[in-house]
Amino acid sequence: MIGLAVLGSTGSIGRQTLDVVRSLPDRFDVVALAAGTNVTLLEEQAREFRPKLLYAGREADYLMERMHSGAIQGQWAEMEEMAAHPAVDIVVVSTVGAAGLGPTLAAIRASKAVAIANKEVLVMAGHIITTEAKFYEAELRPIDSEHSAVWQCLWGEEPDSVDRIVLTASGGPFRDKSPSEMARVTAEEALRHPNWQMGQKITVDSATLLNKGLECIEARWLFDIPLDRIDVLLHRESIVHSLVEFRDGSLKAQLGVPDMRLPIQCALTYPERLPGTSVPRLDLKRIGSLTFGVPDLKQYPCLALALGAGRRGGTYPAVLAAADEVAVQNFLAGHIGFLDIPHAIDDALNTHHGLAQPVLDEILQADTWARAFTEDWVKAKA
Amino acid sequence: MIGLAVLGSTGSIGRQTLDVVRSLPDRFDVVALAAGTNVTLLEEQAREFRPKLLYAGREADYLMERMHSGAIQGQWAEMEEMAAHPAVDIVVVSTVGAAGLGPTLAAIRASKAVAIANKEVLVMAGHIITTEAKFYEAELRPIDSEHSAVWQCLWGEEPDSVDRIVLTASGGPFRDKSPSEMARVTAEEALRHPNWQMGQKITVDSATLLNKGLECIEARWLFDIPLDRIDVLLHRESIVHSLVEFRDGSLKAQLGVPDMRLPIQCALTYPERLPGTSVPRLDLKRIGSLTFGVPDLKQYPCLALALGAGRRGGTYPAVLAAADEVAVQNFLAGHIGFLDIPHAIDDALNTHHGLAQPVLDEILQADTWARAFTEDWVKAKA
Repeated sequence: MIGLAVLGSTGSIGRQTLDVVRSLPDRFDVVALAAGTNVTLLEEQAREFRPKLLYAGREADYLMERMHSGAIQGQWAEMEEMAAHPAVDIVVVSTVGAAGLGPTLAAIRASKAVAIANKEVLVMAGHIITTEAKFYEAELRPIDSEHSAVWQCLWGEEPDSVDRIVLTASGGPFRDKSPSEMARVTAEEALRHPNWQMGQKITVDSATLLNKGLECIEARWLFDIPLDRIDVLLHRESIVHSLVEFRDGSLKAQLGVPDMRLPIQCALTYPERLPGTSVPRLDLKRIGSLTFGVPDLKQYPCLALALGAGRRGGTYPAVLAAADEVAVQNFLAGHIGFLDIPHAIDDALNTHHGLAQPVLDEILQADTWARAFTEDWVKAKA
Repeated sequence: MIGLAVLGSTGSIGRQTLDVVRSLPDRFDVVALAAGTNVTLLEEQAREFRPKLLYAGREADYLMERMHSGAIQGQWAEMEEMAAHPAVDIVVVSTVGAAGLGPTLAAIRASKAVAIANKEVLVMAGHIITTEAKFYEAELRPIDSEHSAVWQCLWGEEPDSVDRIVLTASGGPFRDKSPSEMARVTAEEALRHPNWQMGQKITVDSATLLNKGLECIEARWLFDIPLDRIDVLLHRESIVHSLVEFRDGSLKAQLGVPDMRLPIQCALTYPERLPGTSVPRLDLKRIGSLTFGVPDLKQYPCLALALGAGRRGGTYPAVLAAADEVAVQNFLAGHIGFLDIPHAIDDALNTHHGLAQPVLDEILQADTWARAFTEDWVKAKA
């Protein structure tokens, strides 16, 4: 049995991780579950998987009460404790935002395998995470479909064989809209992703393509390759999940139906591939054709902002991610328009005084600063 | 320096192999060159690469005379001798037909790496070749673009992870023709392949899709997978060279511009990938779309015949390959029509009394029988 800690178990990736666990019985032992807010679902999950350790962020009091009353088995633990627990082999980091940073570092320092779905961890602190992972010989296994694709394409290849990484992007729900139509889109429309079932925040990020910019920064760290050798290719069908171009001119691509259970399972069972998920198989002859194009950076200003922040490095990616998180929350709440998202981020990046080689505390300070700045920006706007 | 023997150096694959050698100076030492007929080109190649060993099939007398007169440096050697020579590390088998069998076995028994472009070697004697290769720990490296694609997709993967192999087929120059139009096509038309620059015989085989049937049989042996888990997918653009479907539902594909120098270089430099070829890079955004479909076995009777012969096994694939070779020669010479090719092969397969586990001599006898049968078939037709 492989011991799992699932941090962020009630979010989209967390729930699908538990789906994979269900589909491969007797393979995984869910040792720890942590959630931020949805304590009702956490309680259900705790009853089903009977983990040793439980954590609930904002609903700590409720959870503690349920444990004291005996309604739920298990012990309270902080996420850092879970990540380093001896019974845990793989830590699934499917939290959102900066919350994943501490637990990821704790997992790395305990030399665990870390299955990362939390983009901000590498975006904010890629230089720290990758240096520590090398030192503690902790494996980083991507869960994001794009990074999982690149990872799979790199199995059995020499690191210096890689020339470019090509991340595909569906273009999101507004790929055919004009700038004036974009200005009027609602939160509801932004949440209708054409290909993937995902969380709300990431669905908006995939409509702005900011998501793809974060993924470029993540890929930069995960695969130790400069940003200028990472391309973004529009691919409406979300079938080719990404590609690697090698220096001899050969490319490898990883393909599959757009279902997160595939890359999650891949990260959990590596280096084995197992049957098990009930995900339908890809049928290329039925799909008939796959299309490719280049994203127009004018249509997707958030992508340009993200790549710019990635190139500047230091604390700028943390500011980018934090400003985006606050801006997206305010867009979803109806406080600002869709095109205000890039404006808010741009203003935050331009106002920020960056540090080139920040330590963790400085990154968290930049995060806090950018959140406050963006909240103020939204208030000034209203 | 890696020592190379290039068997069939004046054919399409042989010439492109020497192109790759030229593009990677100081990496390869061409130890031996062998050609069947084009002794003028062989002489040029001998002057350029100064191999120790030379062989010319039908032009042996001329070549010997040139060597004795001192016009060419080097020593005469049979292909089996070349394949086993101590200075040779990799044997490139780019001969055509049954001629590659003996040298391939000689190379395997000397535990050389064998880069195989000669389809018939594995089609005729796959069970012998693969058993011997395992025993003598000789590496088989495919050169065919499809098999190279599958091979590359399998690097770093566990053998039992593979669910299916999907070989792509362009459909050849007649993919849009009706059966009645097919009946009237000429040799000249059949030689206009839409995507690849190849030899004459293989270009006709790719118009009938018999080629793809041979490739399925080859893949069956190279990758140790039953024929019913090998699919053929029509893919007009010849960009996705083939795919592997793994048992977790993930697929990997290898892509590149359709240029044989890429898979040749891959086989020669493995496990390294090197820059060097002057082959242009693949630009997916310029290509815009990739299409996929299923071949209609009625439109491609040779594919159905090949798969049938592959399933029957034993001496049937040898009969298939030999009957096809003779039929295609006679089509190219204008003696029979395009649609006579499948008829001749079908009659040969139906008349043949097969053996289930033939030894090499029995395979060669089946080959000889099928050639004579098909020559008679053509004469009876005329």
